[in-house]
Formats: sequence, C-alpha cells, structure tokens
Amino acid sequence: MQQDNLQVRIRRLPTGPIGEDDFALTQAPIPRPAEGEVLCRTRYLSLDPYMRKRLAEACAGRLPLTAGDLMMGRTIGEVVVSRDARFAPGDHVLGSAGWQTYCAEPAAALQKLPVGAQALTRYLGVLGPTGITAWLGMVHVARVQPGERVVVSSAGGAVGGTAGQIARHLGAEVIGIAGGVAKCDAIVRELGFSACVDYRQAGFEHALELATPDGVDVCFENVGAAVLDATLARMNDDGRIAVCGLLSQYQGASPYAYRHFSRVLDKGLHISGFRINACTALHEQARTALRGWLDAGAIREWETVTDGLAQAPRAFVAMLQGRGRGKHLVRLMG
Amino acid sequence: MQQDNLQVRIRRLPTGPIGEDDFALTQAPIPRPAEGEVLCRTRYLSLDPYMRKRLAEACAGRLPLTAGDLMMGRTIGEVVVSRDARFAPGDHVLGSAGWQTYCAEPAAALQKLPVGAQALTRYLGVLGPTGITAWLGMVHVARVQPGERVVVSSAGGAVGGTAGQIARHLGAEVIGIAGGVAKCDAIVRELGFSACVDYRQAGFEHALELATPDGVDVCFENVGAAVLDATLARMNDDGRIAVCGLLSQYQGASPYAYRHFSRVLDKGLHISGFRINACTALHEQARTALRGWLDAGAIREWETVTDGLAQAPRAFVAMLQGRGRGKHLVRLMG
Repeated sequence: MQQDNLQVRIRRLPTGPIGEDDFALTQAPIPRPAEGEVLCRTRYLSLDPYMRKRLAEACAGRLPLTAGDLMMGRTIGEVVVSRDARFAPGDHVLGSAGWQTYCAEPAAALQKLPVGAQALTRYLGVLGPTGITAWLGMVHVARVQPGERVVVSSAGGAVGGTAGQIARHLGAEVIGIAGGVAKCDAIVRELGFSACVDYRQAGFEHALELATPDGVDVCFENVGAAVLDATLARMNDDGRIAVCGLLSQYQGASPYAYRHFSRVLDKGLHISGFRINACTALHEQARTALRGWLDAGAIREWETVTDGLAQAPRAFVAMLQGRGRGKHLVRLMG
Repeated sequence: MQQDNLQVRIRRLPTGPIGEDDFALTQAPIPRPAEGEVLCRTRYLSLDPYMRKRLAEACAGRLPLTAGDLMMGRTIGEVVVSRDARFAPGDHVLGSAGWQTYCAEPAAALQKLPVGAQALTRYLGVLGPTGITAWLGMVHVARVQPGERVVVSSAGGAVGGTAGQIARHLGAEVIGIAGGVAKCDAIVRELGFSACVDYRQAGFEHALELATPDGVDVCFENVGAAVLDATLARMNDDGRIAVCGLLSQYQGASPYAYRHFSRVLDKGLHISGFRINACTALHEQARTALRGWLDAGAIREWETVTDGLAQAPRAFVAMLQGRGRGKHLVRLMG
C-alpha cells in the first residue's frame, strides 16, 4: 500500500475549452475514516461530460468547483478500512471519491457492488449512472414507442450509445449524430443504429434530412447548438426532445441562436430537461431493465480506458474533444 | 345590401415588420353559395398575432398566403342566404371568412352562435379561440396549481390577459410582462395580476427578478426572444413553459440567442408548444369552464374595436406594434 494519497486538483478555472494544464497533480496524507466512514482505494474514475460544467456552475446544492479544489467525479473503489458495519475490506463500492487514490467516504453515500462482479466498470457504465441516464431519457422522459424515428446526438458517447440501443431494442428506428466518419460507421455497424450522420461534415443538416425522410419523433439531446438546431428542423408534430446534456455549451461557448426554435410552436414540440438525481425513485426500475437487456445481448458496451491517475486530465480533455468511444474510464494502477 | 364584396388582399409579402401598404382594398362580386354552403355578411374580424405568421408560413396543411391572396382570419358573420338546412338567414355564425364583406362558406365549417347573444364578440374572444387557447395553455399544457408563481408575457394581449386571469382564479400568483407603464398598471389594476413588468424599460431582467423573488413555476409564453430569456433565468426546478406564441419572431427578426437556454437542463424544465387546432377534443371543456368564469365575474374582457373593413390593415399593424389592449376586432359597418 502506497503511503501517499495522489490527487488531481484544479489548478485554475478554464474560461474556454479545458486543457491538461488546468489540472495539477498533488499529494496529501491518506485520510483516516471517522466512525460511519469507509476508506476506499480508487480503482476506476468515471469521466463524464457533465463534470466540465461543475467547474463553472453550482449544481444540486453544491458550489461550483474552483481553483485548488479536488476534481470531482464518480468512482469505483475497494474498501481498505471500514468503520461501518455494512462494509468490509475487499468490498467494491460505487462512490464519488473524485480524482484521488484514497478517499474516506460516508458509508451512507456508497453503493456496494456484487461480490465477485466480473466487469466492475459496468456499474459506472450501463448498470450505473450512464445506463440509468439513458433509460430515464428514452423511456421515462421521451417515452419512445415502437415504430418511431429517433435521433440521438453524441451517439458515440456512453449515454448516447446506450440510449440509442435502448430505443432500437424497443422497436424504434434510430439515427445517430456523431463526429467523424469512422465513429459514425462503428455506431451503425457495432451498435445497430440505422444510420449515423457526421456533424463535422459540410452539409450536415442536409445529410440529417436525407437520413430522416419521415421526420423525427423523438430526440435524445446531448449536445445542443447546431446539432440540436438541425434536429429541430426535422421534428414531427408533437415530437419529444429529452435534453440530457448541452455539451456544446460547457466550454464557454457563446449562446447559440437557434434558427428552428419556432418549431416548438409550429409543431407542438415538447422539450424536457432531465437530471439523473431528480428521478431516484426510478433508478431501480432502470437498473433491472438494463441488466436484462445487457444479459440478453440487446445492449453492448463500449469503453475507452486510460491507465493511471496522472493521465486523467489528458483523458478528460480528449473525451470532451470527442476522441474515443463509449464510456470513458481511468483505471488506477498498483 | 351593398352590391359588391369589399375585400382586403395582400399586395406584397412583407419581409420585415408589416405595414398598411402591404395590403390593398379591392372589390369582387358577391359570391353565390353552392349547395351545402352559406352566404354570410361579415360583422366582425378577429385580429390575432398568429395571422402575421400566415403571410410567410404554411400552417395546418394550408399554404402560406402570398401576394394577391385575400387576407385570412376568423370572423363573425350573419347568414344572408343559406343552402344548408342547419342555417337560416339572420343566424350569427363563427367562421373564417377572412377580410371581406361577404363570404360563401361550407356550412360544416361554421359554428352557429346562440340566438339573441348579447355580446357577439365574446365568441371570438373569451368564449372563442382566444379563451380556448388561454385555457389550453394554462390548464391542459402548463397544469397550473394553486400557490404557484406564473409569468405571462404579452399580458395585455387577448390571450395573455385571459390566461393570467385563469391562473389567478385557480389560485396562482400571476406576474405579467407587457410593453408600457400605463398598460402594465392597467393589467394589475383591472385584470388582477400581482405585478406587471415593462419589458421596454432598461433593467427589465432585474425588474422581473424583483417581481419573482421565489422564482417562476409556470410561464405562459407569447413573445419569445429577450422576454422569454428573462423568464428562463427565473424558472424553478421542474418548471413548465407553455409556448403559445413567439410574436417577436413573426416579423422577420433574426434568430435570438437565448442566454439562459441551458436552464432547460439545469432546472429540468418542460417546454411545450401548443396549437388550438391540435386539441379540439378539449374545446368544449374549455368553453364550459370559460363561460362559468365569465358569468361569475372571475374573468373580464378587454376589447380594442376598430370600425370599417378599410381600417383593418391599420388596426392589424397597430396590434402587432403592441398598441391597444385585449382582443382586437374590426367591426364592419352598414
């Protein structure tokens, strides 16, 4: 057991796109768990686009992160010392340790993972916040129906890729939007989308039009701006747009002037933002459905895994730039 | 009975704000009703903001109006000749004759008004499309609840003024947004709003903030752009925005870059556009409720009446500029 707690802290708050230099690797003593707490060694960090927002914005009652703060994020840890009867050394837990090798977390904030779980990372991915978010947006918010036409943006991302597969499994025709020809091809070939349109290509709007000749009934939106605007133009009467993310706005971009916003009125659209923490009563239902689909092979997982806590900033920046596919994780070594 | 059918036609399609010169007064023969049709003499024209949109946009399966076309609009007429058993000369009917003194309309498209109705114009206003639209947005779409805080834009307009009074009657606290100090004062004094904020004043956003110290649960939106943006900034978690109109966008304005669009995500907002013709199954329920409230004095009516078909262009332009109050009507003389 190493004797120091390695941490990644925010060195300065970015005003535009975040860079590796905005983080700093630091050391601290390994914390001692208080009564009711559990000391965990971090095994995996979950990298998610929403974390970029936390550097500027207050969220769910917590203040925004600022210079000097430990970088936040969900984690899988292994219990080292437990001062709570529900946990024992060796247990694997889902928590929010942030970017550090050790964390003393309140036992009540941890979720114990099954003993001997083969694929721990699934509990950050399809069986965890990623999958639950996708389920909530597609099933609970957009209420996708068989035969409907669905557009999913950031379709190569963890949530988008899962959301699209859920819709396809429920009988919808799913068109993805993603960046890059190779990624779009893989989304069709490996995730079973009907088509995937590259938003980086000139003529993107026209390509989306060709891919949705009968219009769009449901949009699962992760990006916003020009990507959402192109989908707005294709929405059918009474279409539903579940807003899961607005990635285009997280890095200090100017507000986007939607050319097709009036479709909300003309087509009687329903736009609903949603957040995983606002629907906790549905999480178990989502998890049960997702486990069934995963076991049945209806949903597959993509992962992009980077090794080493020190590489977390680079991996995070790369994810926000659209590099890699599926669930982005950092595996902590030794 | 005059021998010609006086008509107001579109002389040219405006690209920006519409002007009186964009219309032309013309004459045509009085039409002869075919079997199943009814010849009506127009008594009142309803002037509504959505009519401006029809000059550029296709709507409900109908092509956009273009140069040379008769100006469209809902009307109250008096039956002159009936070739349908359901109507007789002297009946008053609600129809869509457009801006002309005579029209032969299919009987099936007409709604007969009660014999001896005291206030015919109510059937274009609170008991007609105006009131039904207000009811649909506030009761069916936004589902306003007692104790909630509601913002209504274009609160001095026919639909906004009615929508706000409905919400107040249902136990909500209602804040209006309107143009001009005198109009705002009247909205509070005469329509019973708790407050009304003048969007034309510098510091409008701050004034709205002061008027909504506990945030906003429901927004009934008629305007869009900076007016909606200011309300977005005040929305509470799970707030509902019923989009009834986007008046700011009807006169060729550039797309507006909403600074607070990300509130949709951060607050889990629900934005729903709606159109009166998409919810016909609810119209009778709406009419019944509105009649009860009107009879009980819970809702009052404002009207701005202009005399003479030839004055319709001027009255329409004035309404779009925010002049006058409440329901705008043209009364056809002689």
